[in-house]
Amino acid sequence: MKVKINCIEKHFRTVWMKGSNVYMINQPLLPHKFNIFKARTYLDTVEAIKDMTVRGAGAIGATAGYAMAQAALESVNLRKPLKYLFKAANAIKSSRPTAQNLFYAVDRVCDAMVKEKTLESAVEAAVLEANAIADDDANACKRIGELGNTLLGVKDSVLTHCNAGWLAFVDYGSALSPVYAAKAAGKKIIVYTDETRPRLQGANLTAWELLNEGIEHYVIPDNAAGAFMREGRIGLVIVGADRIANNGDTANKIGTYEKAICARAAGIPFYVAAPTATIDVKCKSGRDIPIEYRSEDEVHWVHGITEKGKRSKVRVTPEGSKALNPAFDMTPAELISGFITEKGILFNENKGFNLEKLL
Amino acid sequence: MKVKINCIEKHFRTVWMKGSNVYMINQPLLPHKFNIFKARTYLDTVEAIKDMTVRGAGAIGATAGYAMAQAALESVNLRKPLKYLFKAANAIKSSRPTAQNLFYAVDRVCDAMVKEKTLESAVEAAVLEANAIADDDANACKRIGELGNTLLGVKDSVLTHCNAGWLAFVDYGSALSPVYAAKAAGKKIIVYTDETRPRLQGANLTAWELLNEGIEHYVIPDNAAGAFMREGRIGLVIVGADRIANNGDTANKIGTYEKAICARAAGIPFYVAAPTATIDVKCKSGRDIPIEYRSEDEVHWVHGITEKGKRSKVRVTPEGSKALNPAFDMTPAELISGFITEKGILFNENKGFNLEKLL
Repeated sequence: MKVKINCIEKHFRTVWMKGSNVYMINQPLLPHKFNIFKARTYLDTVEAIKDMTVRGAGAIGATAGYAMAQAALESVNLRKPLKYLFKAANAIKSSRPTAQNLFYAVDRVCDAMVKEKTLESAVEAAVLEANAIADDDANACKRIGELGNTLLGVKDSVLTHCNAGWLAFVDYGSALSPVYAAKAAGKKIIVYTDETRPRLQGANLTAWELLNEGIEHYVIPDNAAGAFMREGRIGLVIVGADRIANNGDTANKIGTYEKAICARAAGIPFYVAAPTATIDVKCKSGRDIPIEYRSEDEVHWVHGITEKGKRSKVRVTPEGSKALNPAFDMTPAELISGFITEKGILFNENKGFNLEKLL
Repeated sequence: MKVKINCIEKHFRTVWMKGSNVYMINQPLLPHKFNIFKARTYLDTVEAIKDMTVRGAGAIGATAGYAMAQAALESVNLRKPLKYLFKAANAIKSSRPTAQNLFYAVDRVCDAMVKEKTLESAVEAAVLEANAIADDDANACKRIGELGNTLLGVKDSVLTHCNAGWLAFVDYGSALSPVYAAKAAGKKIIVYTDETRPRLQGANLTAWELLNEGIEHYVIPDNAAGAFMREGRIGLVIVGADRIANNGDTANKIGTYEKAICARAAGIPFYVAAPTATIDVKCKSGRDIPIEYRSEDEVHWVHGITEKGKRSKVRVTPEGSKALNPAFDMTPAELISGFITEKGILFNENKGFNLEKLL
């Protein structure tokens, strides 16, 4: 997507590779500073995944693929290149515990390499495959936008939660891609974005994307979404997904379930937009998806910038109080009106979902 | 309630009067600093209501009564005491736009004064009446605790939203009073407190109260409440109320409606605890209660303390993004399992409520 920097618009992907370097938008600095992080080695890239310089399912997957390609390039002049590659694959896969896309991307790059006869051609294949993973992600998200746009009226208002925009993927995004397609088609869309405590991806990232795209939007406290749906302010809800079970139960950012319940009560549609890579057919239902608990400090401390523009954090709870910080919740399939994927929109027809048929 | 300061427990009310001074717990400094604000004149007290040094329906009412008593004391040596008293009554009533208790308390003190024959005896009556208002609030909240305790099991877990503890009243609180009564009766209660964005009264005030009372508690992002209810972590929900219409529709802190919807979906009881003074029989239903919108800066900026213990605020949204900040939402009566008041618990028996009969 295009980013305006000092009044000049320039096209950026969330992550890309040039030579042996991997470049990515430094997401923890947003929305206050736009900065590109350069990872010179695969270990730099692993570190960037670990510390969330890059986050979001699709973006993490592409970054992992590039890290594997970097490792391949680095292995060429070593005495034991294979040993290096095995070590790298393991290190990349264990950089984030629950990101399914890590495994998919690393395995896909490795599979491309083992088909080759020489190390040199394997290295070339690794770089090509890593770029193909990124392209596939961008293309899937673009298609999600085209299909999702058909669900939006000429004038419409969308509620979204967390960030499932282009920063969470290589480009376009999932939940926000239909909004961008609608804008390009001349529709007038208003987006309400939950701020999404505790990490505030809505306030930090979704608001920044929408500002950048020139789309009318309002940041709202997570608490306000239900009331706004009840009042009729919101036409439909579109969220992303971290993992989708075969029956349609969906793990996504904490708070997604509350929005789904409120959408049902208000009688408005609730869509999940995600590439089919997010579907985990090995999970029969939401019961098979574990919910990650993150550090309670994410609740105790809020990050932002001071009035003087300096990055800082403030504590909002008393010393001594404990906090609980589940990263995701599970939205049962029956609350989901449909899945917007690159292979089509699958509507809920009260018979439950069988997502395997999409793959 | 008792507050531990440097390991010494001391009893405090949220607001009280001594001589011609009004003292109150300086709430914006909590949970990071416990400090008593001293208002020497009625105008100091009005200013303290305006800038939310004191907040919460019951506490505001009592403070307004004391401010009127201060004005009475100040009027004694003036040439035109009545003119001064009229001006004061108006100033106090307009210190916060929607706080019903302001009107009630000022009128009650003025009514007590006009029954007297001399200015001196009227002044004495004003001070007595202001203290009676505070005592009535504390007694009503104490009774709410005794009655609400009957709804709690020997081991139970309660979700609450915002702060309807003793800081919001003169003492005891409404939603938290049953928890305090249960603790005194030897029950083991766990409280989950929504942090309550944007002003974080749950993280700041409810957590501080519970820590002080030695009650096991967890601060959770507002987004987590629905998931926790669905998981069976929470036995029942108790919230306070800002205004209750005669049919039971309840205006309370933004997000209350989402919790009520989630409680219904999870099949757990949702109670509103409030003194009967909160019931506005002139409002037939929630449609008659206007919803106050507050400054969007409360969403953009988060207040707390830095690692060095200094009060500070950080911006969490990009410059240029707009925010919306409704202070309250409306929970329809059909989602409320019952009202816990000092005059009894009124259960929802699917016939709708008629709260007038409680008064």
